[in-house]
Order: sequence, then C-alpha cells, then structure tokens
Amino acid sequence: MGAQPTVSDVADAAGVSRQTVSNVLNAPELVRPATRERVQDAIGRLGYRPHASARRLRTQKSSTIGIRLDPITQDGISGSILDRFLHSFTEQADRKGLRVLLFTADGPDDEIAQFRRLSDAADVDGFVLTSTFHGDPRTEWLIEHGQSFVTFGRPWGIDDMTDPQHLWVDVDGRSGLRDATAHLLAAGARRIAFLGWPSGSGTGDDRREGWLEAMRAAGQVPESDLPGLQAVAEDGVTFGAEAMRRLQATAGPDGIDAVVCTSDSLALGALTVVGSRIPVIGYDNTPVAASLGYSSVEQPLDAVAAGVLELLTGAHGGRVRADDGVTDPRHRLVAPRLVVRGGPALIAPR
Amino acid sequence: MGAQPTVSDVADAAGVSRQTVSNVLNAPELVRPATRERVQDAIGRLGYRPHASARRLRTQKSSTIGIRLDPITQDGISGSILDRFLHSFTEQADRKGLRVLLFTADGPDDEIAQFRRLSDAADVDGFVLTSTFHGDPRTEWLIEHGQSFVTFGRPWGIDDMTDPQHLWVDVDGRSGLRDATAHLLAAGARRIAFLGWPSGSGTGDDRREGWLEAMRAAGQVPESDLPGLQAVAEDGVTFGAEAMRRLQATAGPDGIDAVVCTSDSLALGALTVVGSRIPVIGYDNTPVAASLGYSSVEQPLDAVAAGVLELLTGAHGGRVRADDGVTDPRHRLVAPRLVVRGGPALIAPR
Repeated sequence: MGAQPTVSDVADAAGVSRQTVSNVLNAPELVRPATRERVQDAIGRLGYRPHASARRLRTQKSSTIGIRLDPITQDGISGSILDRFLHSFTEQADRKGLRVLLFTADGPDDEIAQFRRLSDAADVDGFVLTSTFHGDPRTEWLIEHGQSFVTFGRPWGIDDMTDPQHLWVDVDGRSGLRDATAHLLAAGARRIAFLGWPSGSGTGDDRREGWLEAMRAAGQVPESDLPGLQAVAEDGVTFGAEAMRRLQATAGPDGIDAVVCTSDSLALGALTVVGSRIPVIGYDNTPVAASLGYSSVEQPLDAVAAGVLELLTGAHGGRVRADDGVTDPRHRLVAPRLVVRGGPALIAPR
Repeated sequence: MGAQPTVSDVADAAGVSRQTVSNVLNAPELVRPATRERVQDAIGRLGYRPHASARRLRTQKSSTIGIRLDPITQDGISGSILDRFLHSFTEQADRKGLRVLLFTADGPDDEIAQFRRLSDAADVDGFVLTSTFHGDPRTEWLIEHGQSFVTFGRPWGIDDMTDPQHLWVDVDGRSGLRDATAHLLAAGARRIAFLGWPSGSGTGDDRREGWLEAMRAAGQVPESDLPGLQAVAEDGVTFGAEAMRRLQATAGPDGIDAVVCTSDSLALGALTVVGSRIPVIGYDNTPVAASLGYSSVEQPLDAVAAGVLELLTGAHGGRVRADDGVTDPRHRLVAPRLVVRGGPALIAPR
C-alpha cells in the first residue's frame, strides 16, 4: 500500500466526500458537472486507478480469488454452511479457470492485514468476504484501496445497501422465516413462537422480522401477546433448550403451538425440551436437521456462489452503472427454501 | 510436463526399476554400488532433478500448497471431517506464511490434470492429498514428476507403506475401534457387534481389525459367533438402520450388548433402531454425535495437519533418509481418542 492513491486521497485533493468520488466513478450522472470535473482532475493528477484488480481479473488467464476461512464454530452444526458455500464456490470458480486461495485471520484487523499482504504480492485478484456485519471495516478498506471484492452477506448499514462500490449476494432470511411461519399457520398452528439471537445481529434481526410479518398478517394472536412468544439466546444446543424453557414460561396460559428458530442448533435445543409434541423449524438445513427429521430453511448456496462469481468476474466487477435499490444488479438477494420433514421422530423429550 | 525427465526416464535409461531409482535417491545404502553408479550416471545424463518443487518450498518466501476440495457427501455427516482438516491445515499453514490453493476434480484422472496445470504454471509448490486408496494413480504421477506432496491417508498398498518417496500422515483407525470395543468390554458388554463398510476399503478394513483384535483378546465370544456379529453397509443413516436390523437377525439367541461403527452416520442409523437400549459408538465425533450425546472416536485433525505440514516443509520434504517401517519419520500414524458420552438420551427408538 502507499504507492497507489486511494479514494480518500482523491476526495481530499478534490475537496469532496468519498461518496462523491465513488459517484463520479460509478454514477457520474448524479454529480454536478463542476464537481465532477474537479474530481476527474484530481484522479488524473494523482494517477488514481479505480478497480485495478477488477480489470486484471477480467484479462488475466488464471486469476485467483482470496477467501478467509472462518474458524470452526463451537458445536459445528451451522458452521458447516460456510464450508458448503466454499465447496460450491470452488467448484464453480474452477469451471471458469479461477483459483481459490485460502487464508485465516484473527478478527477484521488481521483480515485487513492479510488483504494488504495478498494484494501487495499480487497473489490475489479479488476477494470474497463472508460474515459481514454493521460497520464492517474490511469492506471500507477494500473500497479505499480499489480492490475487487464481493461479500456473501449484506453490509447491514443503511447507506451501504445501495453503495455502487459494494457488490454483495445474500440470502433473504426474512422471507425464509416468513415462509416457515406461514407454513405452520397453514397447518393449523396459531401461537407460533420465535427463538432467535440477541438483537443487534443484522442477520438475526432480519429473520425475526419475517416471523413478525407472518404473525401480523395472520392476525390470530393479539399484538400484546407477541413479546411473550419471543426468546433470544446465543447460538448453541444448550442455549436453545434454556430459551425454550423460558418461552414456555412467558407464552402465557394459551401456550405455544409451534416454534421457528434462526438456526438448527437452537431448534435442536428446543426439540430436546418439547420433543415431538409441537413442531420446531430450524434454519440452514444442516445434516443434523436432515438426520433427525425436523424441518429447516435451506440457504441456496449454489445460487449464492454463482451470484458471487458473476459479480466478481462480470461486467459489474469493475465500473458499474448506478441503479436503484435491492433489484440493483450489483446486489443479489436470493430466496431460501423451506425443507419440510415429518418431524423429529427420533427425539424423545427429556 | 515433458520438459522435465521423470523417474521412469531415469529407470529406462539405467535399465532398472523405478523402485531402484527411488532407492538410489532416498536410501542409497540399499542399492549395490554398481547399480547405484549406473542410476547416478543416468540422472546426470538426463538432468533429472529430484523434488525440484520440494526445494522451492523450503527456499521461497511465500509458497503455495494445493489441496483438492472433496465433494460434499450425501448426508454430510462425516464429510465435515475433511473440512475440519482443511480449517486446521489452513490455520497452521498461515502461521508459517504458506498459502493454501483450492481446486476441485471429478475423479483421480481429472485431479492429475489439475496437478499438471498447477505445477506447469508454477502456481503451486506442493500438494496435499486426501482420501487415498489402493493403487492410487495420483501419488504415482506426483512421484514420477518429482512433485512434493504429502497424503492424509496411507497408500493402502503393501509395498508403498514404506515407500521413501511417499510421505503420509494417517489416523490409526484400528486402535480407535480397538479402544472403543475395549471400553465397552470394560463396562460389562460381552457381545459387541461391528457395523462397518463393505470390505475393500482400506480404512474400513483397518477399523474392523481393531474390533476383531479387541474381541479376540477378551475371548468372551466364541470365534464361530464373530461372523454373525458383523454387518456392512454403504455409509448413510438409512443404510445403518437396515444393517442394524440384519445384525439383530444374525446375532443369534444371545443378542447384542453394544455396537461399534466405522462412522457416525452408521451409528445414528443403528441408534434409530436400538434407541437407548444398548450403547452405540460412532466414528469421527461429528456435531451429530455431540448433539445427540453418543460416544464417538475422534480423529485428532490438528495433529494430522501439523504432521502434514511438517513433512511437507521439513527436512523430509525433499531427499529423505531411509528408515524402517511405521515408526519411519516420513510416515505418521496418529492415535485417535474415544470421546465418551452418556448415551443417546435424545433418541427414542421407533
């Protein structure tokens, strides 16, 4: 780093914000002509090269994509999702003659240090990021340094949702939980509880919204009962069991007809408490859900991998046209699929 | 390929076998002086460079290791083992400044084509192979072409076990099943059944030997009863359940006290039949075994990864000294560990 001027350098030189520089590069029609000219002057003066690596990606014969391998999670149940994404992505990248380079990192700062090492050594032509979060410094660094990247996961920030420099693919968890809840409602359940993660996780909050939307649309439970039908816990089987017991206590005299969860780990925890007495739907359709026979929302990881590759290598990998909102071709929201199973016939409640 | 002479070229030129060339390179004291001289002449004449890539691995700053990503298995229960190995390997490689490059392949021939592409382009300095099998053409190709590699898995051939050119690390599955069986015997079980894979798989046959050794050492079951206490099935939960029913039929009037299995999938299948009536021990200590609470044999994947890295980058990565048998420092047999759990309290038999 250092050698190549960044978006910030251009912004400073032109006396404008980073967003304005980004707009000049990607959506010039949004910028007043005088400002545009000032920014273009600064770009020429500093020799700023937008998306140098993106260009390389499209012209080189054998390009390499860097991906951080996430650490294995404690119980390993849902952690396999990112491994499954990696399998699908590697297979599809291989077919396009792209190589996948793995690395590990202890947290975002270390991951940024790895970005720097890999891009300085020209070992990598683009990055795929997973597990995005609100205010993620990694994407900021990559945009600053003109690195080509796509995230599996939304930016989870309001302005970033349509940032033309941040290409992303994500699964529509809200529609997943909405479908799961609607499925249970159609089967006759009325009082459906939600078992999720503590608020603040973009992914978890989004899935909770799906449950809430379906419950409100059905209108079978008074609004005042909805808080008692929600419980949160850190991800894990034992935490899920504890939260299920809390739910049973807060649900009131009418009880609970069914449960939808943000993960298969929480669902398994709930099942250890309720057994086959009421249906429980998990999320991620892991081998655990398949083996035990409970329903779960499946993330279409092949479609996610295909979307990430397309954005990384396609016309949108470099300069992109401005467009609007979630239907923006630089952003893909993929619908998950509910896998319905007969129920946890294997599990006896304790 | 083509440009660089291979072991076969040297063998042809010297009128000796490939094994003799290998011995001259790696264990010259085993070869008669006259033969040795003839081979060394041929090496000089042809310009053969043994383990060119291994040398590179030790001298280059940022070397890259290629690993084929195995396809996801159907039920995904035990398939996660290779993913866990990949995580551990990538973390440890990262700490040594090595990069891990992933690729996929449809079968061994395609994998060899990938070896060729990656080594021709100098994209990779060494390979890690998983899922080795008897008569594996991949290792033959790599030895032929002087590529540095280590396998996670034994060659499963008689001569290859001590081949000084084939470095490997494996888990001692035989001792794993022996320990599992001994654990059940110590807890009072006498008639312990074995549920494994159809014979012919090196890994499966080896694990079966462990059960057999422990049963014979205990001497509590007449030899003539042992065949009826074995059943085989393709890996999978439903196949495991079917095989368990067959075992119940063939075990005779004295029945079965416990079951040891070659995988957690088979163990789960057995548990769907026997519930918590008799103990069942699986293999791989997957999230499924942990979640459901049954015992399982754990492969120490961190130790395997460390061994693979050490062999790939250490003094043994290039020319190696001859040594004897399984204690050979070019080969590592790592002992697994039995993880004992209370039993499948979650599971109700059908």
